[in-house]
Amino acid sequence: MQNVMNRRWLLAAYPEGMPTLENWTLDNQLVPDPGPGEILVKAKWLSVDPYMRGRMSPSANYTKGVAIGEVMQGGGVGEVVATNHPAWKVGEIAESMSFGWQEWSVLTPGLGPPGVNKIDPNLAPIESSLSWLGMPGLTAYFGLLDVGRPRPGETVVVSAASGAVGQLVGQIAKLAGCRAVAIAGGEDKLQWCREIGFDAGINYKKATDLTVAVKDSCPKGVDVFFDNTGGSIHDAVMRNLAIGARVIICGRVALAAQSGKPDIGERFMGQVIVSRASIHGFLVLDWWHRRDEALKRLAEWQLAEKIRFKEDVLEGIERMPEAFLRLLHGKNFGKQIVRIS
Amino acid sequence: MQNVMNRRWLLAAYPEGMPTLENWTLDNQLVPDPGPGEILVKAKWLSVDPYMRGRMSPSANYTKGVAIGEVMQGGGVGEVVATNHPAWKVGEIAESMSFGWQEWSVLTPGLGPPGVNKIDPNLAPIESSLSWLGMPGLTAYFGLLDVGRPRPGETVVVSAASGAVGQLVGQIAKLAGCRAVAIAGGEDKLQWCREIGFDAGINYKKATDLTVAVKDSCPKGVDVFFDNTGGSIHDAVMRNLAIGARVIICGRVALAAQSGKPDIGERFMGQVIVSRASIHGFLVLDWWHRRDEALKRLAEWQLAEKIRFKEDVLEGIERMPEAFLRLLHGKNFGKQIVRIS
Repeated sequence: MQNVMNRRWLLAAYPEGMPTLENWTLDNQLVPDPGPGEILVKAKWLSVDPYMRGRMSPSANYTKGVAIGEVMQGGGVGEVVATNHPAWKVGEIAESMSFGWQEWSVLTPGLGPPGVNKIDPNLAPIESSLSWLGMPGLTAYFGLLDVGRPRPGETVVVSAASGAVGQLVGQIAKLAGCRAVAIAGGEDKLQWCREIGFDAGINYKKATDLTVAVKDSCPKGVDVFFDNTGGSIHDAVMRNLAIGARVIICGRVALAAQSGKPDIGERFMGQVIVSRASIHGFLVLDWWHRRDEALKRLAEWQLAEKIRFKEDVLEGIERMPEAFLRLLHGKNFGKQIVRIS
Repeated sequence: MQNVMNRRWLLAAYPEGMPTLENWTLDNQLVPDPGPGEILVKAKWLSVDPYMRGRMSPSANYTKGVAIGEVMQGGGVGEVVATNHPAWKVGEIAESMSFGWQEWSVLTPGLGPPGVNKIDPNLAPIESSLSWLGMPGLTAYFGLLDVGRPRPGETVVVSAASGAVGQLVGQIAKLAGCRAVAIAGGEDKLQWCREIGFDAGINYKKATDLTVAVKDSCPKGVDVFFDNTGGSIHDAVMRNLAIGARVIICGRVALAAQSGKPDIGERFMGQVIVSRASIHGFLVLDWWHRRDEALKRLAEWQLAEKIRFKEDVLEGIERMPEAFLRLLHGKNFGKQIVRIS
């Protein structure tokens, strides 16, 4: 696109341990024209999510990482400005996990999952497609309901409970008739968790003995553990599993500083036998074929005011690395997103 | 019973680490008379099993431990010599996990599971009720088929593959249309595994790099891992999980020397996410309500020569501790049992 510049964040170096602002450089290029079958989208909102830490690595994981000098991977939502695809018109709203940390993105509809999704701006604010009505919402929905299989009366513990996924897990657990216990790092975060329905909360930064704190909050043991963090929070909950417990391993943001290195610590295989517990690795992309079902339910619940959601908004493409680092350091309060224009 | 002595092994001390012969003392007492509702059984065969290590502890586990001075817990099969229970006649054969390490046992039918089970001596040698037609058989059957849910063409890896449970897991995996890979500590053991149908075998004592050895034997990754050992064998297999792998944590005999202490090592939660694997703690007692179904299938398979089974027999009540220590040190070859009379 003639004379219009696209600001974009390139990966400058792979981090050793916790990433810093030096890991990215802000670059300018002319906005590209969409090729055949492609659309050009102007970002309105970009997302930062813990999974991005794993992409800052040359080694193959469940998908490929970002190469040095490439645009940092990430999801976003924006307006179609030019289109060479018959199913897309100028002015429509497109959400995609292939957006990248940039103001303008050329996307290819029809690939995926997760692909490029058309967003109805009348249903909810379009940035919801990056949070409760998008990937984090699907993560909470399928991870809790289909993997965790909560039964009424059971105790569900959620780590990073005020985060994008955690707040939804707690509220869906309540809708399923469960007792919901939040683990978060701050009284303000726990206060919000209580407001949206969690029955109890643990401030992991204040607990003198986290294992005891979990025990006190879950006197009958933990039936479902939705783990977004790993690390010492994981350990404390694993020591309190009830018979037949289900553990959903969704994220490991507490280990961001040691990404790529072996995680050494106490293993809980004896506990797993005694509790006849099961541990389940979870990737939301495996559930993409049931996306419509989940989005419909989430939208219904939100319309009925059965779920509420807190976002943490920064302004401007310049602040993408800062937003991401806030997330890794647990400084965000609610789903971290960045408004672009 | 007048003038007849019952020799029995009492727990003398809780072991620190690996048990030794000093942990038990051989005691004599008059054979007791059965009380109301009880039967007196003369042992023919006693079993030693890895779970007994966990019972040599004062701390509560999934069931209570053996107190100092009490008879060591364990299963056995023998002949009813006196009966005060209407469902039992003198001369019938009784199998029970409540037998204890002793020549004579007073049992109470009607409690359980696992309870006291009547054994048909015409169906199979009665000692089979301690192995392929008993608890180890049920463990292999439910653990592999119901927890592991193997599909034809998948790769099933079994640790302690020539042991009581392992040999059956491999053969049932073959019946389910899978590729079965044995891990065992000795060429003689692996030779037996090949004879009964395993497709490949790994001698963990000889492998220079066990992770590489598993990779070489499982080029498409491990779909089902039936883990009887824990420890470094567990680690090597966990590094080779296929997408969607199921891991059955059945036993941890490799950790017998550190029973009761935390198991520190590499945790595989990142691997579990990437592989969308699940890890399942398994206790056979949870499946007791389907015992008859499994025993019927196992008996049919054995009759049709679809499963074979190797036992490792010692003679005499005096050798119970030795038999158990053979098991913990991996010196047994096949299911370890002791013939009493």
